[in-house]
Amino acid sequence: MLYCLIMAGGKGERFWPKSRIKSPKQMLSVATRKTMIEETLTRLETFIDKSRIFVITNKEQVASLRKLALLERKRVIAEPLSCNTAPAIGLGAILIKRENPQAIMVCLPADHIISKKTRFRRVLSLASHLARQRDALVTIGINPTYPATGYGYIRIKKMEDKKEGVFEVEGFTEKPRKEEAERFLRSGRYLWNSGIFVWKVSVILKAIKEHLPQLYTALMRIERSLGKREARKVIREVYYELKPISIDYGVMEKARENVLVIKGDFGWTDMGCWRAFWEFHKKDEKGNVCQGRSVNIDTHNSLIIGDKKRMIATLGLSDMVVVQTEDATLICPKERAQDVKILVKEIKRRRGMSRFL
Amino acid sequence: MLYCLIMAGGKGERFWPKSRIKSPKQMLSVATRKTMIEETLTRLETFIDKSRIFVITNKEQVASLRKLALLERKRVIAEPLSCNTAPAIGLGAILIKRENPQAIMVCLPADHIISKKTRFRRVLSLASHLARQRDALVTIGINPTYPATGYGYIRIKKMEDKKEGVFEVEGFTEKPRKEEAERFLRSGRYLWNSGIFVWKVSVILKAIKEHLPQLYTALMRIERSLGKREARKVIREVYYELKPISIDYGVMEKARENVLVIKGDFGWTDMGCWRAFWEFHKKDEKGNVCQGRSVNIDTHNSLIIGDKKRMIATLGLSDMVVVQTEDATLICPKERAQDVKILVKEIKRRRGMSRFL
Repeated sequence: MLYCLIMAGGKGERFWPKSRIKSPKQMLSVATRKTMIEETLTRLETFIDKSRIFVITNKEQVASLRKLALLERKRVIAEPLSCNTAPAIGLGAILIKRENPQAIMVCLPADHIISKKTRFRRVLSLASHLARQRDALVTIGINPTYPATGYGYIRIKKMEDKKEGVFEVEGFTEKPRKEEAERFLRSGRYLWNSGIFVWKVSVILKAIKEHLPQLYTALMRIERSLGKREARKVIREVYYELKPISIDYGVMEKARENVLVIKGDFGWTDMGCWRAFWEFHKKDEKGNVCQGRSVNIDTHNSLIIGDKKRMIATLGLSDMVVVQTEDATLICPKERAQDVKILVKEIKRRRGMSRFL
Repeated sequence: MLYCLIMAGGKGERFWPKSRIKSPKQMLSVATRKTMIEETLTRLETFIDKSRIFVITNKEQVASLRKLALLERKRVIAEPLSCNTAPAIGLGAILIKRENPQAIMVCLPADHIISKKTRFRRVLSLASHLARQRDALVTIGINPTYPATGYGYIRIKKMEDKKEGVFEVEGFTEKPRKEEAERFLRSGRYLWNSGIFVWKVSVILKAIKEHLPQLYTALMRIERSLGKREARKVIREVYYELKPISIDYGVMEKARENVLVIKGDFGWTDMGCWRAFWEFHKKDEKGNVCQGRSVNIDTHNSLIIGDKKRMIATLGLSDMVVVQTEDATLICPKERAQDVKILVKEIKRRRGMSRFL
């Protein structure tokens, strides 16, 4: 039986000032009129029943996620604190295992954009087939289109199934430097790591036991408490002692055996920052993406987002990002969009500015 | 007796979005905590009694100017429409003449910044002396410090009074192109035209009669109506038939005889645009002038003005202007600050945007 674990704990600080602690990236309508989490859930409709969809998030977002009609309230779980993906996936695995020890789980980030829904489902079906038949750890890779330095890469070993685009994995690498990324691209043996994984709950828990034994012990402690009164207390205690680590580095890099990757040719976009937002959307004849009320003169290749009441007026801008919300306005060159998180960090540091977070 | 005519009809569109139709540049606190018109009036205190200060403005600004304690209500005159400086000065001249036919009038723009008040008064005293003794048309010139293309220039003939910096005027020139301005600067025979004039009302009216006879006829029609019930109607009728023309081109350029200029060495700044605003104010260690709430990272030589409630966050900006008000945000490179008026023109053209003017 196919289950899904949606990882919705990200803060998406690079989408400030639209993303805030209480309305992070996945709660924004970034690509369509739907929020990103709604897009993610709609994509699963008629494919995985909502009773089998779990969401791992944080205290700040749990209330608004529980209001979504596409989710079951009790399936939305808040971690006491964020410890990256390995603990989140581990916790999801024991929750799903409790309902169905034979379950296969699909781990999905909440904030991807996927334009080809049918192909996406076909890839997930193939992945779950491989996970079931071969006890494989299956990941979805994306054919790289440019030497991105913002993604991890997966090195593929040899062709497994040409038609379906299944490969054995030789290794995972962290975000590379520019020259390295260029070499990866030229070699033709690397895929972007999408962060989408498919495996049996029993197989991933076994892998966690082997490669992250401390996390495994912690998860077993949580598992024993589930259904009891002290469960919430135990989870909190356990989390406060966990080391944050990603599933990529904690498990996938070390699991040499039976790790497969499928080329995910389904129109994947990682909406990582305002620059990606600009790239994704249709441009006007001057290369601008404009939303809200603005007057722009001699302005090119820029992203201009206003709110409803106020207006933005630009003159002589090129390759800039301007995003105005009710209480804050961001201005930066498009090429610095990645660093908006540095700005958010600085706002956190300043006194009397917490209401802007 | 010394009278003053303050020309406060300017729109100051280059200070949008701070300057608006109902709160134009001279009503803004641009240099100090006082508004520019208050600065102008304070500068005259104890020098010209407020009963002898007239203000020529427009319908939009007349009400707020009449509220100023430094002015007498009835001395604030609204023109039915703006026709540049010649009609405004002509109207001021007949109003002052009616009270005192021997009056000397000082014509002052409302939006200059003058740092040396005592020197300023000394220059005006000298100017009024020359106007009285010699029936001269006296103008105040500013020693040019760079080849500005935004000012008119005055070509000086020969030294009149070395110590006091009085020169005979050889001619007025319109705003020059860059190369011409550079030549002017090198020659040492040009001053910037400040737009400050001192003359007897009888002398300027005679000059208007000679060089702008149509305007003179119109002014005489107004003069005859003054004090009568139809005065307001006559003024309106007359103005709707006037040709807009500046006193510089309409009178000063043509009046070859007895035109004098005094070098106004009193710390003059023309606060013409946001770039000038940045130049005028004290900068922080990164060369930024910041007002209001903002967080600025890797931002240099920029002007960042926020309003009270909202915040501005900048990242990686250089030589930029960002001005946020309650309902509008301007973003442009500092070097385009002059062209903010083009933006305002565009906002005027757009439907449903008049509330931003």
